[in-house]
Amino acid sequence: MSHKYVYLFNEGNAGMRDLLGGKGANLAEMTSLGLPVPYGFTVSTEACTRYYEDGKVINDEIVEQIKAALAITEEKAGKKFGSAENPFLVSVRSGARASMPGMMDTILNLGLNDETVEALARLTDNPRFAYDSYRRFIQMFSDVVMEIDKEKFSRLLENKKKANNVELDKDLTAENLKELINEYKALYKAEMGVDFPQEPMVQLLEAVKAVFRSWDNPRAIVYRRMNDIPASWGTAVNVQSMVFGNMGDDSGTGVAFTRNPATGEKKLFGEFLMNAQGEDVVAGIRTPETIDSLKTINESVYNQFVQVAQTLEDHYRDMQDMEFTIERGKLFMLQTRNGKRTAAAALQVAVDLVNEGMITKEEAVNMIDPKQLDALLHPQFAAAELKAAKPVATGLAASPGAACGKVYFSADAAKAHHETGEKVVLARKETSPEDIEGMSASEGIFTSFGGMTSHAAVVARQLGTCCVSGCKEAYIDEESKTITFNSGAVMKEGDWISLDGTTGKVYAEAIKTQPAELSGNFATIMEWADAIRTLKIRTNADSPAQAATAIKFGAEGIGLCRTEHMFFDEDRIPAVREMIVSKTVEERERALAKILPMQREDFKGIYKVMKEHPVTIRFLDPPLHEFLPTKDEDIAALAETMGITFEQLKETVAALHESNPMMGHRGCRLSVTYPEIAEMQTRAVIEAAIEVRQEDGYNIVPEIMIPLVGEVKELAYVKSFVVATAKKVMEEKGMEIPYMVGTMIEIPRAALTADDIAKEAEFFSFGTNDLTQMTFGFSRDDAGKFLKDYYDKKIFESDPFARVDQIGVGKLMKMAADLGRQTRPNIKLGICGEHGGDPSSIEFCHKIGLNYVSCSPFRIPIARLAAAQAKLRNK
Amino acid sequence: MSHKYVYLFNEGNAGMRDLLGGKGANLAEMTSLGLPVPYGFTVSTEACTRYYEDGKVINDEIVEQIKAALAITEEKAGKKFGSAENPFLVSVRSGARASMPGMMDTILNLGLNDETVEALARLTDNPRFAYDSYRRFIQMFSDVVMEIDKEKFSRLLENKKKANNVELDKDLTAENLKELINEYKALYKAEMGVDFPQEPMVQLLEAVKAVFRSWDNPRAIVYRRMNDIPASWGTAVNVQSMVFGNMGDDSGTGVAFTRNPATGEKKLFGEFLMNAQGEDVVAGIRTPETIDSLKTINESVYNQFVQVAQTLEDHYRDMQDMEFTIERGKLFMLQTRNGKRTAAAALQVAVDLVNEGMITKEEAVNMIDPKQLDALLHPQFAAAELKAAKPVATGLAASPGAACGKVYFSADAAKAHHETGEKVVLARKETSPEDIEGMSASEGIFTSFGGMTSHAAVVARQLGTCCVSGCKEAYIDEESKTITFNSGAVMKEGDWISLDGTTGKVYAEAIKTQPAELSGNFATIMEWADAIRTLKIRTNADSPAQAATAIKFGAEGIGLCRTEHMFFDEDRIPAVREMIVSKTVEERERALAKILPMQREDFKGIYKVMKEHPVTIRFLDPPLHEFLPTKDEDIAALAETMGITFEQLKETVAALHESNPMMGHRGCRLSVTYPEIAEMQTRAVIEAAIEVRQEDGYNIVPEIMIPLVGEVKELAYVKSFVVATAKKVMEEKGMEIPYMVGTMIEIPRAALTADDIAKEAEFFSFGTNDLTQMTFGFSRDDAGKFLKDYYDKKIFESDPFARVDQIGVGKLMKMAADLGRQTRPNIKLGICGEHGGDPSSIEFCHKIGLNYVSCSPFRIPIARLAAAQAKLRNK
Repeated sequence: MSHKYVYLFNEGNAGMRDLLGGKGANLAEMTSLGLPVPYGFTVSTEACTRYYEDGKVINDEIVEQIKAALAITEEKAGKKFGSAENPFLVSVRSGARASMPGMMDTILNLGLNDETVEALARLTDNPRFAYDSYRRFIQMFSDVVMEIDKEKFSRLLENKKKANNVELDKDLTAENLKELINEYKALYKAEMGVDFPQEPMVQLLEAVKAVFRSWDNPRAIVYRRMNDIPASWGTAVNVQSMVFGNMGDDSGTGVAFTRNPATGEKKLFGEFLMNAQGEDVVAGIRTPETIDSLKTINESVYNQFVQVAQTLEDHYRDMQDMEFTIERGKLFMLQTRNGKRTAAAALQVAVDLVNEGMITKEEAVNMIDPKQLDALLHPQFAAAELKAAKPVATGLAASPGAACGKVYFSADAAKAHHETGEKVVLARKETSPEDIEGMSASEGIFTSFGGMTSHAAVVARQLGTCCVSGCKEAYIDEESKTITFNSGAVMKEGDWISLDGTTGKVYAEAIKTQPAELSGNFATIMEWADAIRTLKIRTNADSPAQAATAIKFGAEGIGLCRTEHMFFDEDRIPAVREMIVSKTVEERERALAKILPMQREDFKGIYKVMKEHPVTIRFLDPPLHEFLPTKDEDIAALAETMGITFEQLKETVAALHESNPMMGHRGCRLSVTYPEIAEMQTRAVIEAAIEVRQEDGYNIVPEIMIPLVGEVKELAYVKSFVVATAKKVMEEKGMEIPYMVGTMIEIPRAALTADDIAKEAEFFSFGTNDLTQMTFGFSRDDAGKFLKDYYDKKIFESDPFARVDQIGVGKLMKMAADLGRQTRPNIKLGICGEHGGDPSSIEFCHKIGLNYVSCSPFRIPIARLAAAQAKLRNK
Repeated sequence: MSHKYVYLFNEGNAGMRDLLGGKGANLAEMTSLGLPVPYGFTVSTEACTRYYEDGKVINDEIVEQIKAALAITEEKAGKKFGSAENPFLVSVRSGARASMPGMMDTILNLGLNDETVEALARLTDNPRFAYDSYRRFIQMFSDVVMEIDKEKFSRLLENKKKANNVELDKDLTAENLKELINEYKALYKAEMGVDFPQEPMVQLLEAVKAVFRSWDNPRAIVYRRMNDIPASWGTAVNVQSMVFGNMGDDSGTGVAFTRNPATGEKKLFGEFLMNAQGEDVVAGIRTPETIDSLKTINESVYNQFVQVAQTLEDHYRDMQDMEFTIERGKLFMLQTRNGKRTAAAALQVAVDLVNEGMITKEEAVNMIDPKQLDALLHPQFAAAELKAAKPVATGLAASPGAACGKVYFSADAAKAHHETGEKVVLARKETSPEDIEGMSASEGIFTSFGGMTSHAAVVARQLGTCCVSGCKEAYIDEESKTITFNSGAVMKEGDWISLDGTTGKVYAEAIKTQPAELSGNFATIMEWADAIRTLKIRTNADSPAQAATAIKFGAEGIGLCRTEHMFFDEDRIPAVREMIVSKTVEERERALAKILPMQREDFKGIYKVMKEHPVTIRFLDPPLHEFLPTKDEDIAALAETMGITFEQLKETVAALHESNPMMGHRGCRLSVTYPEIAEMQTRAVIEAAIEVRQEDGYNIVPEIMIPLVGEVKELAYVKSFVVATAKKVMEEKGMEIPYMVGTMIEIPRAALTADDIAKEAEFFSFGTNDLTQMTFGFSRDDAGKFLKDYYDKKIFESDPFARVDQIGVGKLMKMAADLGRQTRPNIKLGICGEHGGDPSSIEFCHKIGLNYVSCSPFRIPIARLAAAQAKLRNK
C-alpha cells in the first residue's frame, strides 16, 4: 500500500498545514471556498522528510504521484506540459508549516523551452511577453535551482540594454530578448557543462528538489534555530498553473492586507502593478500603486477583490495577507495567510476582532505572539528621527529598547554624570559585578566583548536597560576613553551615542526616544490574559526600584531577590571584603554586623514596594572570590585600603581560587562553612519584615530560599540555624511572623532526590540556568566557543539557556515537581531561571504544574500572555 | 504499647546484631549455647537512636526497662546494687553493629562507692583488691563518662608511688589506695563541682549516656565515614555482672583467637595475665603469657577454654576472637567475635575452613573483605626492616604498597636515573600530565600538595605505583632539589627515601621491600570467586605494560583506554601542540598525520597483550589547553621550539582559556569542532586491529568510546565520521573487521535521555567520576575545600567520589541502564569511573545489571571478589 505524498488543491484544507505547509493548505482552503485559484497540487512535507531519509533523492513513488497530479492539473487547464500547441506552464513555490524566509521562494513560468515559448508567443500573440517570460525562467531556474550566480545573468541583461541603448527592461524588443535567451543558455551550459533542460518534467523535478534542498540552507537553519522550528518538519512544494500578470495592460499583480499591518486599522491595505509579475513589485524599479487605485483601473475586479478579501477574513477570522494576479482582466488568488503585523497592530486587530464579534477574548489572547510584546515595553527611537540616522556599527541585540546619552567609560564616571542630570551610556570592554551602580545609572550599555549571556547582557535585561553587547566593529579603549569604529569613526568621552538594543545597531549621534506605551489595547489584552491564566507571574528583582517597575508591569510577587547584588554596592563591599578575609568566626561576625543594617534596609525597601505580595529572598550565592580583585596591582591597592598587607590579601585570594568556580564553594556550601552569613541574612529578613509590619501594617511572609542544595541534610543543616535565628529575632522583637524556608532546585541531584528535599523545603524554585549547565555538563561562559558548531551541525536546534530543554532538563524538572508533591502535596513550585520569561518554557512550566514563573520585570507582560496561552492550549 | 529497648542475655541471639550490636548479640548467643557468660542485659541500638531523637536524653520508658532488667540480673547474681552486704557490680561496654574503634570501650566495677567498696573488701577478704577496683572505677568513670583528663589521675597515682617509694601499681598498699581514692574524689569534685556519684543507678545511667554520646565523637565519625557506616545505626550498651580477674593468683584475664590472626594457622593463639583486669593486658606494664602456658597454671580451665573455643568456632564457623576472665579458678567468657585478621590470614582461614568441610566455597568467598586484598597486591616492606625504621613524616596514603628508591625532583631526572638502572622515587610539589613518563619510571611518588584525588594520586593508583600525597610535613623545593621535613631533616637529590603508600608514612632511609604474592590461597579464592560472579572485570589501562599487569591480575578486557595519556608522551606532544595551534583543517590534518603512526602502534601493543579480550578505547577527552603551558616564560620557550612567535602561541593559549574547564570544550565536543581528530583516532584504532589480525591472527573487536555525550545527535554526528573513516580504512586495507561504537554516560543529560542515546550507542560505560561531579554540582578539584565541613556536620557520610552515591548518582545510573536496555535489549553496560574498584559500588553495578566493571589493574582482584560477593548477596 503506497503512501500519499501529493495532494491536489481540492484534496486538502487549511487544517492540513503540517502536511501541506501553510501556503499549500491555504491554497486548498481557498479552492474549496470556491475562490478563483489557479489549479495545482502540493507535494507534502512528508515527501521532503522522505527525500532526506533517502539520502537526498526523490523516491520513484513520489515521482509517480507528481506525474499523476500533473496530468489532472493539465487536464483541468486543457493544456499539456511541453506541448507545441497549448503548452502548460506552472509556478513552483516552497511552503513550510511556518513561514520561513531564507528558503527558496518561487520559480515562475516553468515548462517553457525553445519550443513552448514559440507556442506561447503565438497563443498570446505577444512574442515579447513570451520571450521575456522564458528569459526570466532561465534566470530563475539557473539561480534558484542550479545556484549559478545570478549576477552573471544580470550582467548579460545590462550589456544587452547598453548595446541597444535602452534604460528599462521593458524597452528591450522581442528580438533583443531572443538574443538574450541564447546568451543565457550559453552561460548556463558554460556553468553547468550541459544544456539548459528542455524537458518540462526534468525542470519540474529539479525545481522540487531545489525546494527540498533549500530547507537545509544556512539561512534557513539559522532562522529555524531562532524560531524554534525543528529540522524534522520539512517543507512542502506547491505546483500551480501559471497565470500572468504581465500579459499586457489588462493584467497585473499585487499584494494586500485586509487591515493595516502597521497600525491594525480596519481598511484594505496593499499595492499592485499592472503588466507585471510578482518579482517586479519587489524589485522596486516601478513604484506600485496603492490598492485603492485599482478601483479606477478595473472597478469590477476591485469589487471582486474586496469581496474575496472580506470572505477570507471572515473565513479565517484574522487579518489576511493576500497575493493576487489579474490576467487579462480576470482575478486570480495566489496566496492568503494570516498577515504579519507590528506589535501595536497585533493588539489593535485582536481587540477590534473581539469588538466586531468575530473572535472570543480567548482567541484574541491566543493570537498575539508574546515575544512581539517586548517591543512595546521599552523606549523606542522616534520613527522619523531614526529614518535619518545612520548606524556606525552593529553588535548583539542583547537587551531591547532604545537609548540615547553621552558616552562614559567607567561605571564611576557614568554614575557621576548621571547624578548631574545628564543622560549617560556606559561603554566598557565588558562589565563586571562592580559596575552595577554605573549600569543602573545608564540609559544604555555598550560592550565590545561578551555575548548574549555576558554579565552586561544579563544584568541589562534584568534592569530593563537597553544593551548592545559584543560589538566586534568597535574598539573600546577605557584608558584613552575612546571608541574607534571599524569604519574609522572615533568617539570620545561625553559624545552622544544612541543604541538600539532590539536590532544591535549603534549610532554616533543623538536620536530622540519615545517612552513605552502600556495602556489602551495593551492593557485590554493583559486584562483578558490575566483572566485566563492560572500560573502566577513573579519577578526577579533585587531593589525597590526594580520591584516597582515589576509591579507596574503586573508582577504578583518576587520569585528571586538576589542578595549578593546588594553586596556589591560601593558602601557595602568594604564590609563584605572584611568578612571574607576574616580568620575567625568573631572577626567575620563583626564584619557581618556592619552589613546587617544595610541588608535590612534593602529588604524593608522591597517589602514596602511589594506590600503583601510574596517575596522570595535567595541567600548569598556566588563564590567569595567574586568580591575580591585578581590582579596584583588591584590586590595591592585594596590591601592598602583595608589596612592589611599585600601578602595577607593575596593569600586569601589564592586560597579562594577555584579550578571550576561554577562548581565550587558557593550557594548553601558557603552557609555550611560559615553559618554566620546565613544567620546575618536571616536576621535582616525577619527584622525587616517585623519592622515593616510595625511601620506600615503589611503582613509580610518572607520566603527564604537556600541556593545550590543537592542533599536534604545540607538544607536541614542550614535551615536549622535559619530557624534558630528567626526564632531569636522574633523573641527579641516580641512579635511572631510567619515565614517559609525553601530551596532552589538547580543541582541535578536535588531534582533526583526532591522527595527527600521536600521534607525540609516548603517551596522549590527551579534555577534552570544552573540546572541546564549541570545537566548538559557545560558552563554557559565556555559553551559559547563550541555551541556555534552545535547549531551549524544541527546537534542543537535551540539555545538551551533561552528555552528549557524539555527532553533532558525538563525531565528532571518534572521528576522534581512530582517527587516534591509526593512528599508535600501543597509544596509551592516556581521557576526563577532566565527561562521564566520564555513563552515555550512558560508553557512547559504550566504543564508540569508549577505555581508561578519569575522573570525580569520587562518580561512580565510576555509571561502573563504566555501563561494565558499555555492555559488555553492545555485545557 | 511500649517498645522493647532492653534485652536480657537470654532474650537475644547472634542474629539480632542490628538491634543488640555485635557484642550484645554474641553474648546472648553464648548464653544460649550454655557457655559460662556472666549474666546481664543489652540496651538496644534503637535506644541510642531514640536518645538522639529525644535531644540527647534517655527516655523514662528506657530507664524503666533498664531498671527492670537490672533487677532480674541482680536476682540471678544474688546481689544488690549498692548493697552494703552483698553489692552488685557491673561492667558497661558499648557494642555497635560493626566493631568500631574510637567509641567508648569499657567501664568496669560500676556500682562501687564508699560503702560497697567496704563490702567488697570484706567479702573477698582482700581490701587491697577492693580499693584498687574502686580507684580504677573512679578513674575510668571520670575519664570516659565525664571526660576529665585522665592524665590528672595518672599524675596522682605517680605521685603516690613516688611518695611511697614504690615502682609498680601493685606495690601500693590498701592504705595507699584508700588515700588515693580520696585524692581522686577530690579531683573529681574540683573538676565537676559535685561529688563523685555514690548512687549506683546514677553511675549506670551516666555510663549508658556516655556510650551513646561516644557514638558521635569525632574519631567515631571519621571511622564511620571511612567504613561507610551510617550514623543512623547507633550503638548498643551491654551491662554485665562483673567478674574479676584480679581477685588473686587464681584469677586472671586474657584474649585469644581460635587461629593465628597473622598467618591463619590453625592453632589457639592468645595471651593472658593472672591477677589482672583487662586494662592491664593492654597497658603493657606486665608481659602477658601465651595461651599455652595456661595449661601449666590451671589445666582444667585451659581444657575448658580449648573446648569453649572449639565450640565457638564450630558454632560461628569462623575464626573467633575471644575475651575471657578467670575468677578464683572459674572461667568466664566475656566476648566472642569473628577475629580480625591480616589479608594473608583471611585467605588461609577461608581456604582451611573449606578444606575442613566447615564452610562452602561461597561462604569462604563471602568471608573476605575485598578491601583487605589490596595489601597483598603491592610490594610491602620486609617486616623485620620496617620494625627498625622510623618515619620522618606522614602524608596521605594515596596509593598502596611500599617503595624504596633514590629521590629525584623532576620527571626527567627520575626517568634518566631509572634508565641507568637506579630505583627512583619522584618527589614533586604536585604532578601534572607532563610528568607521566617520570611517574611510570618511579617506584613511588611523593607530593606535598594535592589530596587523595590529585593527579599524582589518581595516576599512581592507575599505575599501581605507591604514592604518598599531600604531605604537609614536608617542604619539597624543586629548585634547590631538597625536601625539608618539619622535623628539621633535610633530604637532597639522590638520597634514599622509602614510602609506605598504605599508611602514608615516609622514611628518610632505604627499607627493603618484598614483592606481592599472588599464588597459593590468593589464587584459590580468586578461582572460587570467578566461578560465582556474573559481572565481568575489565581494567583501565593506557599502555601495553598496564594491560599486561591487568591480565596478570585477571582482567577480562579493557574498559577504558584513555588515548590522551598517549598524547603527553615526550615524542608526541610536539605534534599534538602543532595540531592545537593549527589555523586550518589542512594544518591540523598534517599535524594529526604525524600522531597517527604512533597512536596506531599504541593500539597494536595493547591489542597484542589483550589478545581477543575486548578493548574499549576512549577518544580524546581533555580540553586542549591541558597540552599547552600557561606561564609566559614557558609559552615563550615553547613558541621558540615550535618556530612560531610568542604572540601566536599566547593567543592560542588565551583563546583556549576557560572559566570552568571541566564543563568546557572537551570530550566529544572536540570532535564536533574538529572531526579530523576523531578521524585520525578511528584510523589508528582500525588500522591497528587489522594489522594485529594480519600479524598474529587475533580477532580484535575494538570498542570505540565517545566521551562526554549529552545528546543523541551529538553522538550520531561524531559516529557518522567514525563509521565513514572505518569503512574507508577497511576498504584501503581490503579487510572487514567488526567494531563497536558506544559512549560514556557521564553527563546527567545522557543518563536522562539514554533511551535516545542507545539508538546510536552499542554500549554504555558509566563515567561515574564526571557523573558524580555534574550530579552533585561540584568539581572534585574544588570540593576538597568544603567537603571536610560536610563530613564534620554529618551532611555526607561517605566520599561520593570513592563510593557511588546510590541515592542520586545511582538513580541516574539505574535510569540510564533501564532506558538503554529498553531501546537496545542487549546493550553492553559497564562502568569505568574510579568507583569500578570499590566493593559497595560494584555491588550496586551488579544490582542494576551492568555487564562489567572496569578498574585500575591493582584493583582487579578486589573487584573479582566483590563481584562474587555481590552475586551471593543478591541471589
